[in-house]
Amino acid sequence: MKALVAGGAGFIGSHLIDALLTEGHDIVCIDNFFIGTKKNIRHLKENPHFQFYEEDLSNFDRILEIFQKEQPDYIFHMAANSDIQASANNPMIEYQNTYSTTFVLLECMRRVGVKNLFFASTSAVYGEQMGAEVSEKAAALEPISYYGGAKLGSEGMISAFSYMNDLNVLIFRFPNVIGPRLTHGVIFDFVKRLKEDSSHLRILGDGTQSKPYIYVLDLVDAIMRFKDTPKGVTLYNVGVETQTSVTRIAEIVCEKMKLEGIPFEYTGGRGGWKGDVPVFAYNLDKIHEAGWHAHMTSDEAVAKTVEMVL
Amino acid sequence: MKALVAGGAGFIGSHLIDALLTEGHDIVCIDNFFIGTKKNIRHLKENPHFQFYEEDLSNFDRILEIFQKEQPDYIFHMAANSDIQASANNPMIEYQNTYSTTFVLLECMRRVGVKNLFFASTSAVYGEQMGAEVSEKAAALEPISYYGGAKLGSEGMISAFSYMNDLNVLIFRFPNVIGPRLTHGVIFDFVKRLKEDSSHLRILGDGTQSKPYIYVLDLVDAIMRFKDTPKGVTLYNVGVETQTSVTRIAEIVCEKMKLEGIPFEYTGGRGGWKGDVPVFAYNLDKIHEAGWHAHMTSDEAVAKTVEMVL
Repeated sequence: MKALVAGGAGFIGSHLIDALLTEGHDIVCIDNFFIGTKKNIRHLKENPHFQFYEEDLSNFDRILEIFQKEQPDYIFHMAANSDIQASANNPMIEYQNTYSTTFVLLECMRRVGVKNLFFASTSAVYGEQMGAEVSEKAAALEPISYYGGAKLGSEGMISAFSYMNDLNVLIFRFPNVIGPRLTHGVIFDFVKRLKEDSSHLRILGDGTQSKPYIYVLDLVDAIMRFKDTPKGVTLYNVGVETQTSVTRIAEIVCEKMKLEGIPFEYTGGRGGWKGDVPVFAYNLDKIHEAGWHAHMTSDEAVAKTVEMVL
Repeated sequence: MKALVAGGAGFIGSHLIDALLTEGHDIVCIDNFFIGTKKNIRHLKENPHFQFYEEDLSNFDRILEIFQKEQPDYIFHMAANSDIQASANNPMIEYQNTYSTTFVLLECMRRVGVKNLFFASTSAVYGEQMGAEVSEKAAALEPISYYGGAKLGSEGMISAFSYMNDLNVLIFRFPNVIGPRLTHGVIFDFVKRLKEDSSHLRILGDGTQSKPYIYVLDLVDAIMRFKDTPKGVTLYNVGVETQTSVTRIAEIVCEKMKLEGIPFEYTGGRGGWKGDVPVFAYNLDKIHEAGWHAHMTSDEAVAKTVEMVL
């Protein structure tokens, strides 16, 4: 098939392209390099099954032209602002890069008659659930970040477009994803700070904030496995059962950097920053019952990522 | 207080302004007359407590200027596309008039420091729940119309802005609202068709589609009563316990038009049009427990509205 990967020069998108190419598909990649990088897709440049368009996915007229020309069979929507801290100071980023990109892709699908969609959603749509294990049928969807708000809005529009146009949609809600090609986040910050000054390590919050970290190749594996969905919206929480606290990440970073006895200095408080969900647990029964499990635990994914960042 | 009513020249917005003026507040009204009309606010023209701006609420720069100049205390966001059938053919209307207006107002609130918001949401965020009585804690939010999708997206963004900026937000999810100044919908269609040709009445669907219709002054009464909310988002389903089927509406229209024995011709099928939710029931326990009930039943609201339309 011909797969259009929106945000394909990004961290997750570029890995997904690798997997789709391996399975024999043709790729149309659209990215504006807002967060994605040329480096992530450099190895694909000469591949005859890979085509690239540098475009802003919120530019409806231009994206529609690409749809009309390329007539893709399947849209993988991986484009979004993935830096929650950045948009905390400028919510317009989420309106433009997370919500509007979704609307533009849906409207292009409707106009051109594309029926298949994968949407990369997030645990952030649930908001702060006080550590309760949230399932896909969670009662409350109360995002506390602009990113989560824009992703929930995208899901709402997808639900409507799916019903109105008989789409086959797969939505994954996943937590923090890490691994090769990662460009920002707590692991990066710790490595950077310790390289600059290894006399101590400053940690936002009290260090007990704990999250499940999924390895990017595990996530891509799940997308490939479930991408052929029936009519309507199929929704899964995707993640790992284990979690890693911020203090544990700091320990793993120090261990891998062979730094011993570094004092950790906590800024204190419950969360790293406003809009951050300090403790989060996922109910993964649905995808487990469908026969899928992540290969790596959260700690394993962190350790492997630290090795690559160094 | 100074209340900014977005979409204040519309059907519900203009009634809300009347109630706010009666309670002694100053009004800043913004409307682009996309659906709202000059007629709805004509009686307010000379009122020294009423100010009007003809602007598109999705025009961020212009709306921000108005916020900065007027420094409102409370935003009543009544602006949206209310014609679900129109946007079924052009979803861009919902992106622009329903979702983007919400984002612009929220971002202006953040920039100028306005803390109070009322948001007019809808039963359409629930989607089709097979006649189940949905409560505010309904498990699934699966809109089947672009309108419902854009409203759910608005709620998601409101949740995030509320958390990030310590807002006091009241959200009402309400069904079909009818009464004086109504401009479209099934009651209008039936009256119009019968005035043109009273030999028969064509009815979309099988006539069993049944919905709760709330009288506009009942809805405004609830907004006025609950508008002072604590920090965070307070969400209510607002409506009437009774319902009126499409066939019953046709009967009431014929009765009021003194037409007897008109044959009803059904187009058949389960819904009036795609994206229409044919049977819908509301769980209203939460607002009833808070001490509020609608004064008029659904049939009474229909009958009163038919009298005004004639």
